[in-house]
Amino acid sequence: MASLPAVSFQPSQRSQWAEGQPISELMSRALANPNLISLAAGFVDRESLPVEPTRLGFERMFANSLSAQTALQYGTTPGFPPLRTAILKQMQERGEADGVTIDQIVVTAGSNQLLHLVCESLLDPGDIVICASPTYLVFIGTLNNLGARSVGACCDEQGLTPDGVERTLQAIDDAGELSRVKAIYTVPYYDNPCGLTMPVGRRQALVEIAKRWSRENRIHLIEDAAYRELRYEGEDAPSMRTFDADGETVITAGTFSKSFSPGIRVGWGVLPKHLVAPVCNQKGNIDFGSPNFSQHLMAEVLQGGLFEPHVEKIRDAYRVKLHAMLEAADEFLAPLPGVRWDRPTGGLYVWLVLPPGIDCGPRGQLFDAAIAEGMFYVPGQYCFPTEGEPVRKNTIRLSFGVQSPEKIRRGMEALARAIGQVQDSAK
Amino acid sequence: MASLPAVSFQPSQRSQWAEGQPISELMSRALANPNLISLAAGFVDRESLPVEPTRLGFERMFANSLSAQTALQYGTTPGFPPLRTAILKQMQERGEADGVTIDQIVVTAGSNQLLHLVCESLLDPGDIVICASPTYLVFIGTLNNLGARSVGACCDEQGLTPDGVERTLQAIDDAGELSRVKAIYTVPYYDNPCGLTMPVGRRQALVEIAKRWSRENRIHLIEDAAYRELRYEGEDAPSMRTFDADGETVITAGTFSKSFSPGIRVGWGVLPKHLVAPVCNQKGNIDFGSPNFSQHLMAEVLQGGLFEPHVEKIRDAYRVKLHAMLEAADEFLAPLPGVRWDRPTGGLYVWLVLPPGIDCGPRGQLFDAAIAEGMFYVPGQYCFPTEGEPVRKNTIRLSFGVQSPEKIRRGMEALARAIGQVQDSAK
Repeated sequence: MASLPAVSFQPSQRSQWAEGQPISELMSRALANPNLISLAAGFVDRESLPVEPTRLGFERMFANSLSAQTALQYGTTPGFPPLRTAILKQMQERGEADGVTIDQIVVTAGSNQLLHLVCESLLDPGDIVICASPTYLVFIGTLNNLGARSVGACCDEQGLTPDGVERTLQAIDDAGELSRVKAIYTVPYYDNPCGLTMPVGRRQALVEIAKRWSRENRIHLIEDAAYRELRYEGEDAPSMRTFDADGETVITAGTFSKSFSPGIRVGWGVLPKHLVAPVCNQKGNIDFGSPNFSQHLMAEVLQGGLFEPHVEKIRDAYRVKLHAMLEAADEFLAPLPGVRWDRPTGGLYVWLVLPPGIDCGPRGQLFDAAIAEGMFYVPGQYCFPTEGEPVRKNTIRLSFGVQSPEKIRRGMEALARAIGQVQDSAK
Repeated sequence: MASLPAVSFQPSQRSQWAEGQPISELMSRALANPNLISLAAGFVDRESLPVEPTRLGFERMFANSLSAQTALQYGTTPGFPPLRTAILKQMQERGEADGVTIDQIVVTAGSNQLLHLVCESLLDPGDIVICASPTYLVFIGTLNNLGARSVGACCDEQGLTPDGVERTLQAIDDAGELSRVKAIYTVPYYDNPCGLTMPVGRRQALVEIAKRWSRENRIHLIEDAAYRELRYEGEDAPSMRTFDADGETVITAGTFSKSFSPGIRVGWGVLPKHLVAPVCNQKGNIDFGSPNFSQHLMAEVLQGGLFEPHVEKIRDAYRVKLHAMLEAADEFLAPLPGVRWDRPTGGLYVWLVLPPGIDCGPRGQLFDAAIAEGMFYVPGQYCFPTEGEPVRKNTIRLSFGVQSPEKIRRGMEALARAIGQVQDSAK
């Protein structure tokens, strides 16, 4: 074989845009010490995963050879029709299915793949998505990967503000870039990272803003409803779809990863009709449809009445954990000057804001102090879009999903000690 | 809500490149008549899908709560380590694992997602992949979707020719475009669409060519081994990896979709070390890892000794079908002037070449005549890259995967009648 000087490998532009999620590096650093209490990862609780419902779903699916074989065979690109029908039925029961047909429902590998496919369909490099500031950190990575821009708009204690979005749109328009805005991204139910739920009026206002600013091109509103089922208190809120009279603006992403099992990994999108072909064409080239086996299994779980009882069960389990975290915050953090947090009623997260001088990032004093005290967290700085509202380094995302109430309490106590030390040393 | 003139939706450039697979339209046309015998889709046989091995694998996976919960939880982006270890062990048993570590094995949603991620990592719009002419039609779509170019090189009855690849590279170099060539794509085991297997010497020659032409940048060789396990006669051939001494050139794509179950949909790649981070970073942004549940299930199937016996069983089943198709070809097609076909020893396909005047495409006489006679096929024209060697419309891809031997025989007889009619009408 000819021997040649090695040629360097130059990855694609996309590949250069796709930096690893910064959080991975952080996690491996923290995980080097298995005794640490992680209030970082937004995982669901292993103990409450649906072992029995899955077994029963599997037994239904394998009740006869034909049904088993069909699950083991290829499916179609948009997904298994009975599963999509079951998803549509859920929407109908909530009064949110007006004018929606199953053709508009596309099943994906978690809601993340749906977000990716939608972004691929909407965005060229340099295009803009307006996000809350802070927002879901993985979504910022997805946009970076496509060479798209995330621009953060102002949030308050009810999430993304209509005023903030208007001001952001106006600033972009003033800069002559309105034609680059392709979407507004929202997580209106118990959002990641703040745990906040958007009030009804604000949902309606944001849909109206997306429509009103669709002057140069269609601005879609992406509604990421990943945490909708993780509601521990209060009433459910209507999907933003219900304010989209012509059905051309709102894209809803849903998933069974949080409400049932991330390992089975079935998500979906409810798409405006004009997006069905673009999304499915790309999905056809990528994987021609999500695993049929997982889809049949989820369909059996839904049809067999196994889903709702499980959701009730995990609501009870997470409600206890949320309260454990809020009570520990009241006990250990309240005495610390300038430390604030929201009080979510669902989801997996609590967002902490520390006094402005404290850097919670991986190179700040606090992160190391927290590890020394026995816990770690996600620095809030990773949750800020790359443009728009400034990154606030004095923020922390806490998750109560994985740990027991007792460990949550101990983790919060450790964090309070670390904050106290950093505040003392700054005196 | 403000009422505005509708703004037209302009999909992304990517989205415009991602045309639907032309074959889908064709399939729906043909499927309108359920009595037709399809020798078109490259599906595996429903009856031979692994119902019992899957049930046993599931029982192993759900043997205790911890193991079940772990399968229902999130996994990691590159995939479940015991599954990757089992894949590495298969490679070791074949003597093909020299210098390979499990870090280089990444689990994907079928081998198709691996091909997609590799292309995303290697290719910018306008970049070139040299393919066999004809080649796997879905891969052409994947390249189109990325704005990349597929350039077809000459094939003979042993598949892609080293001479053809050299001539193609020389022509591209003469045009000053060598720096755009990023990969050579091969399906060296029982290829789609021709069923041909590449001899050992040719495998070695192609790896050497990829290395020797890596003058301006690294030219990778993609080895799509999707059909490797579907071997009905003769010996297995060594992976092209075994000729890649420094491990920097060959990318191997494998899958359990053909050998076990497309519904479970677990594929993988064996990557040169420099491609692991680019592929995983992008996968992290798209779906942060393939469904863990499917991966645990396949790991149990492999560890439980359930895989090899199933492969033996489907080899027996498909061998009978391959023979049925070749015998029917000898009986019904041999009498027709100028009709030629290859004699595969594995895979799912037989490639027919008709006399040059006959258009087998969707707008030609033959396709309609075949439907009228009761069968349909994939027009070979869809399997030709968009540049390079000319498209040959007088070709047909037949698959013997789905139908019974009896229906294969009747389908071939119907096709022969249709060809006879078209030949007669041309006299």
